[in-house]
Amino acid sequence: MIKVTVWNEFLHEKQHEEVRKVYPDGIHKAIADGIGTDGFQVKTATLDQPEHGLTDEVLAATDVLVWWGHMGHHLVDDAIVERVHARVMEGMGLIVLHSGHFSKIFKKLMGTGCDLKWREANEKERIWTVNPAHPIASGLPEYFELPHEEMYGEHFDIPAPDELVFISWFEGGEVFRSGCTFHRGQGKIFYFRPGHETFPTYYDENVRKVIRNGVRWAAPSGAAKPVRGNHKPLEEIRS
Amino acid sequence: MIKVTVWNEFLHEKQHEEVRKVYPDGIHKAIADGIGTDGFQVKTATLDQPEHGLTDEVLAATDVLVWWGHMGHHLVDDAIVERVHARVMEGMGLIVLHSGHFSKIFKKLMGTGCDLKWREANEKERIWTVNPAHPIASGLPEYFELPHEEMYGEHFDIPAPDELVFISWFEGGEVFRSGCTFHRGQGKIFYFRPGHETFPTYYDENVRKVIRNGVRWAAPSGAAKPVRGNHKPLEEIRS
Amino acid sequence: MIKVTVWNEFLHEKQHEEVRKVYPDGIHKAIADGIGTDGFQVKTATLDQPEHGLTDEVLAATDVLVWWGHMGHHLVDDAIVERVHARVMEGMGLIVLHSGHFSKIFKKLMGTGCDLKWREANEKERIWTVNPAHPIASGLPEYFELPHEEMYGEHFDIPAPDELVFISWFEGGEVFRSGCTFHRGQGKIFYFRPGHETFPTYYDENVRKVIRNGVRWAAPSGAAKPVRGNHKPLEEIRS
Amino acid sequence: MIKVTVWNEFLHEKQHEEVRKVYPDGIHKAIADGIGTDGFQVKTATLDQPEHGLTDEVLAATDVLVWWGHMGHHLVDDAIVERVHARVMEGMGLIVLHSGHFSKIFKKLMGTGCDLKWREANEKERIWTVNPAHPIASGLPEYFELPHEEMYGEHFDIPAPDELVFISWFEGGEVFRSGCTFHRGQGKIFYFRPGHETFPTYYDENVRKVIRNGVRWAAPSGAAKPVRGNHKPLEEIRS
Repeated sequence: MIKVTVWNEFLHEKQHEEVRKVYPDGIHKAIADGIGTDGFQVKTATLDQPEHGLTDEVLAATDVLVWWGHMGHHLVDDAIVERVHARVMEGMGLIVLHSGHFSKIFKKLMGTGCDLKWREANEKERIWTVNPAHPIASGLPEYFELPHEEMYGEHFDIPAPDELVFISWFEGGEVFRSGCTFHRGQGKIFYFRPGHETFPTYYDENVRKVIRNGVRWAAPSGAAKPVRGNHKPLEEIRS
Repeated sequence: MIKVTVWNEFLHEKQHEEVRKVYPDGIHKAIADGIGTDGFQVKTATLDQPEHGLTDEVLAATDVLVWWGHMGHHLVDDAIVERVHARVMEGMGLIVLHSGHFSKIFKKLMGTGCDLKWREANEKERIWTVNPAHPIASGLPEYFELPHEEMYGEHFDIPAPDELVFISWFEGGEVFRSGCTFHRGQGKIFYFRPGHETFPTYYDENVRKVIRNGVRWAAPSGAAKPVRGNHKPLEEIRS
Repeated sequence: MIKVTVWNEFLHEKQHEEVRKVYPDGIHKAIADGIGTDGFQVKTATLDQPEHGLTDEVLAATDVLVWWGHMGHHLVDDAIVERVHARVMEGMGLIVLHSGHFSKIFKKLMGTGCDLKWREANEKERIWTVNPAHPIASGLPEYFELPHEEMYGEHFDIPAPDELVFISWFEGGEVFRSGCTFHRGQGKIFYFRPGHETFPTYYDENVRKVIRNGVRWAAPSGAAKPVRGNHKPLEEIRS
Repeated sequence: MIKVTVWNEFLHEKQHEEVRKVYPDGIHKAIADGIGTDGFQVKTATLDQPEHGLTDEVLAATDVLVWWGHMGHHLVDDAIVERVHARVMEGMGLIVLHSGHFSKIFKKLMGTGCDLKWREANEKERIWTVNPAHPIASGLPEYFELPHEEMYGEHFDIPAPDELVFISWFEGGEVFRSGCTFHRGQGKIFYFRPGHETFPTYYDENVRKVIRNGVRWAAPSGAAKPVRGNHKPLEEIRS
């Protein structure tokens, strides 16, 4: 049973009628429903809760954290960002979705600017699997389409991902590394591109499958915590 | 239930009393016992069987193939090598152990010479985890030791692994990339260094854990088979 | 002065009027002209020459080999393929262009099927730089276009490249990892997608720049040849 | 002519007689001398200078910055760290040496804790080349030794390097990924392990060669600056 916390800033849904129509209970609810209960125990947390709903207790009980944020990145408390970062170093998985590319936690983990090209033109996105051996591609067709999405284009300012799973084609002429995995400390991170707030992307069956696969892949795998600092020799030193 | 076939050339055990003492029922038996039955269905196959025990039927029913070979690499039929290669491209996992680095199937999959330094001096090997987020390191201490092993030293002539999980330290002064993962086609490959035929390495609990973890990691994950060849346009072409 | 040999099967140009019109002196001549003489000494070799123009002497005097082949892959002698492979292991660079993805030497070096999707529809290709720190992207715009090219689409059955430099967008709806680097042995390999025989791709200034950059990047860098085989201990063994 | 700035905190040399004996003019002087003038223009900068010697002007005129720090990491102004980071994103190379693993700039670029094991026991280090095709290994033997060094041991808490060039063996029983490359933004980063302040490591000819090679490798390569932000479609959108 993988314990998942879906975090959402939950701002667009309250402020923009257009978004509320698509996600009346919040994007986090749609993401959580998509992950489901078959092998998962899913809770949600939002920006407006005390400590953004990410207390030490909550994070200690989280195997994989899913992150959706956009207009409220700057409202996330730095101390909470440090706390999430520390948990990733300890082994908590992190799934960063769409505009989460510009969240404090993702930027801190990547060490780069994380900027990209974007356009809101309701255009078609086609997502191609380029690593068909990867468990995150499990059960997916070789490509799938989202009829209307925001465009994200290269150059996406991230480190070269440890594994590149998906590349998106956009109708307007761009490409994007849409499914990227990273190991950081004992934690696993998966960035997945789709999910603009005005489109029903998180109800799409393929998108939901990718997120479920990502959560399974990112769950802690339990190697021993590395010992660091001053270390006694294991062998006699004679030099 | 992951279906595993452990393949062994099974020559040293018949020809060398020293090896037979350590592995009276063959190295394959010790490896198979180490994988166990908790989530696995394990069979064995050997060089002297018809088609080396790797018929189309056997391979079709194999999720992960484990390979131990050494003195008989040249005796493996090229047609069987092609057959195993085709199954890896289709998604079958492959665990290559120790002297399997010089097997026809590993060399074909790597595309390089796969040579290395070696020495039989019964020396100590210490295996360090350098990727503590990796599922193959699950449940392992940050390092473990084998009191007596054959030395393998760099440069190991392989492509840079997709993921480097373990590095060995040898008493005589060398290092080695001992745990290496590769994706090839839809298949996953894990190379793991230890296992000289004269040492009881495959009874070691940590070694057994690594192999079990490797088998779980390498099991097929089931993305759609990519379509290749001539392809009709998905969008209207007007240029 | 980097010594370059441009190899071309030189068959289409002799057999197909359509190709001859575009490359009257052969594709190799256009590629060689594009590399130029500023820091390079460029020769050519073709399939119909003795030993395909790739004698031991020629290869020993080659720093970087550029390869264009298509309809004659099966006509390339296996012994010559082994010879080229051995030189790559020793440090000779190799630039594989377009349909060279299916050449014997590339398939041997990759260890995979190297198949892909393709379509001849004279469509637009847009090549995006996804690694702007890479020397092969030197002097290039963030994207460039080829108005008419053959389409190559994913999944391209290669190992994950060590570095992914370019991704192509195709008008018909596909994407492709178009600029891929690999280290194999002491050799460096660069695969670059464009260059269908019926289009004037190798006269394009951006394409020429990529190939020049690739040749510079792939030139041997001169580390010591690794010693392999039985190795005496560097430290006293007491275990 | 590559413009290099060697930065040193320059504290140990002033405070510790033991260090001053080895590096009477500062570690930066020994590093700068080792880089030399053949193709390089080398300047130095230190912590005690205004803006730590890293003014906008200095950084704008720096192709590659070499960093040595240890006891004064916390004394480096955050604004200067941001400035260096911005220049790396723009393409400036960065060579981080030894205890620089814990510098603010390296930690920010890596996104991880960057901690490791260490021990001061004057023990022998043997540095093995594991990527003999890499230009940073140019001209080096397959291994070289430093008779007395501080030990650094795994797990080194960094992202998996884009390329692993060297692995160290330590007499006391540990291993370490000692030569690691990373692309970040348009910048190239090389971490190189050796160089404890009490040992004459930066006078060693092999160490100097590695640093020179690293500087050459990390020099900006000049792709176009990526455009980011809102982007007009390149193709007509009809979906």
